[in-house]
Amino acid sequence: MTSEETSARTVMEWCDILGSYSEEPDCLTRPFASEAMRQANEVVAKWMRDAGMTVQRDAIGNLIGRYEARSAGAKTLLFGSHLDSVRDAGKYDGPLGVMIALACVERLYQRQERLPFAIEVLGFADEEGLRYHSAYLGSRAMTGTFDLEALQLTDAEGIEQGPVLEARNLPVAVVSAIAGQSRISVRFTGEANHAGTVPMPLRHDALCAAAEFVLAVEALGSSTAGLVATVGQVSVQPGASNVIPGQVTLSLDVRHQDDMVREQACRQLEERAREIGQARGVSYNWQVLQEHHAVPCAPHLTQLLAQAIEKLGYSLLSLPSGAGHDAAVVAELTDIAMLFVRCRGGISHNPAESVTQEDVAIAIQVVERFLQLLSEEGGYL
Amino acid sequence: MTSEETSARTVMEWCDILGSYSEEPDCLTRPFASEAMRQANEVVAKWMRDAGMTVQRDAIGNLIGRYEARSAGAKTLLFGSHLDSVRDAGKYDGPLGVMIALACVERLYQRQERLPFAIEVLGFADEEGLRYHSAYLGSRAMTGTFDLEALQLTDAEGIEQGPVLEARNLPVAVVSAIAGQSRISVRFTGEANHAGTVPMPLRHDALCAAAEFVLAVEALGSSTAGLVATVGQVSVQPGASNVIPGQVTLSLDVRHQDDMVREQACRQLEERAREIGQARGVSYNWQVLQEHHAVPCAPHLTQLLAQAIEKLGYSLLSLPSGAGHDAAVVAELTDIAMLFVRCRGGISHNPAESVTQEDVAIAIQVVERFLQLLSEEGGYL
Repeated sequence: MTSEETSARTVMEWCDILGSYSEEPDCLTRPFASEAMRQANEVVAKWMRDAGMTVQRDAIGNLIGRYEARSAGAKTLLFGSHLDSVRDAGKYDGPLGVMIALACVERLYQRQERLPFAIEVLGFADEEGLRYHSAYLGSRAMTGTFDLEALQLTDAEGIEQGPVLEARNLPVAVVSAIAGQSRISVRFTGEANHAGTVPMPLRHDALCAAAEFVLAVEALGSSTAGLVATVGQVSVQPGASNVIPGQVTLSLDVRHQDDMVREQACRQLEERAREIGQARGVSYNWQVLQEHHAVPCAPHLTQLLAQAIEKLGYSLLSLPSGAGHDAAVVAELTDIAMLFVRCRGGISHNPAESVTQEDVAIAIQVVERFLQLLSEEGGYL
Repeated sequence: MTSEETSARTVMEWCDILGSYSEEPDCLTRPFASEAMRQANEVVAKWMRDAGMTVQRDAIGNLIGRYEARSAGAKTLLFGSHLDSVRDAGKYDGPLGVMIALACVERLYQRQERLPFAIEVLGFADEEGLRYHSAYLGSRAMTGTFDLEALQLTDAEGIEQGPVLEARNLPVAVVSAIAGQSRISVRFTGEANHAGTVPMPLRHDALCAAAEFVLAVEALGSSTAGLVATVGQVSVQPGASNVIPGQVTLSLDVRHQDDMVREQACRQLEERAREIGQARGVSYNWQVLQEHHAVPCAPHLTQLLAQAIEKLGYSLLSLPSGAGHDAAVVAELTDIAMLFVRCRGGISHNPAESVTQEDVAIAIQVVERFLQLLSEEGGYL
């Protein structure tokens, strides 16, 4: 077994142990500010100290392990992910990113090696927003506390939470950007009426309008590179089998790594909603609930990650991240880069979440090579 | 004011009075076997006696007013509709049919005129099925009690509960048949997944499949003469704005006056569901919940109603009834015919249900002329 394989096995064991800290007996649920979260922080703090790090916990519950640089006064590279979980979660979303960084620091410590920059490994306390329905509380609190002078670069890892790496048969990928997102509520209002007595040409069926719109959303998503567009919720009024639907409310979720593409897609879809309604004598209402702009990863840092992957002999894939991440919050403060590790079947936020030890070993190699490349060049430091 | 206009005004007043008997203070709700229903029966019984009829109430609560024929041993013509209501009902669906028949008998009685057949006016106690969710209890009970020898023909009237007469600017129409109905539950099962991370081509979105199906239902309804096909209920799982729908369940309601057309439509739609699913990697499930075959109105009786309309100078329109009626139950026993009276905006099962006194006067004329035509001919008697 190579040393990376041994480290990967340790990472898998750490994730198993963290998976046992839960607020519910039969599934993994670890919300912000819970007893399970406190226990998880405690055991991770111990592993950090064993890896030669000093450990702090801030007021909101974020865990910070620090591995000093070769010399005093050096800058700091942050690695981070979150240690809280959604309800009935898998073991890897969040913890894997922290554990891979921790393993890399442990390997440096075992070799008694120091780098020209300090490393901090951050375990954020609230990405998922399970308890207060307001995600990124941890990273938001932390970004308020950093000494900006000392901080120049950040790196985060996580599992892909999507099926692309598996489909392309690749263990890892670099992230080009965290996609921007629009959340919109779309309502069509026609005329509820008796399903038996109103002939088809006299109807103003809100559901038929909504169905046309759902297919228009899919068509635009499919024909625009990198766009994902989803209707996930449908509410039909009055919702009786023998009544023509009078009103339908849909959720619309649109994401792209380029804000202009996303904004144009939303404008086109609103125009389609208007056209569909007009042709059917059905009115429409368009309400933007939330907009997050895209967060690009820093080209130079991302380039170093890409070089690390290619030097290890793997094909390079650059992917946007459709899911949100703590990195988007940290990016308000400093440059970020992200590494994705393949997950099985694209399954996430689910007990079936799965990564292989082999892929974790590759991720460890990539991060080590990245640290080496970053140490060798002076641009950032 | 003509005598028909005076009778029409009385009918409107009777409907107003019946509308005041309700189980709820602020709206009209008159379920089977309620105190409001007992009061309604009592006042209708009084009006029946005032119109020269003998009155019976059967064990289940149906009201039967009988106006004897010119001579003993004659056959009986039944007029009927229901006196119960849905929750928060209008004043006319049900009562109008009973009151127009009652007005016609009152007019015979005032002229001291007897016909070659007896007339019974039936107020059914439970068409709407509000209390026990099993409609037609009244007419079902009654059809078990008739002396088949004595009974040869039946006529019923009601309001259209649809917008066709209004659209065609006609006061009344004859009913060709009560449409048959299929109620089906259709389920599409794809793959729930993260709306941000799964690219469009890798999705198996159950809602997109369902949307295609909704439009296929509409298209088949629109391209098949006389067919109405409706999706009224949609349930999306998991139903979160940021999750690709994994499962969608739809209600499908298909009606036509020709059972073969309806059955073929259902087969075609199931085939479309299969095709849509197959193209998307989404499975489908097709569950027939209920099937009612069509009930044709008797051609000869309907022809007499049509003659009455034409002799009075109105354009003839023959319509299927998309809604169910007590007449469908009575048709198991004897020939039926039905007359529709225009209602405003096609609105029914709603406090806004509305008919005009002018149209009621025309309906009274049509029924009187029908009675005259039936008396003159011997075919049925």
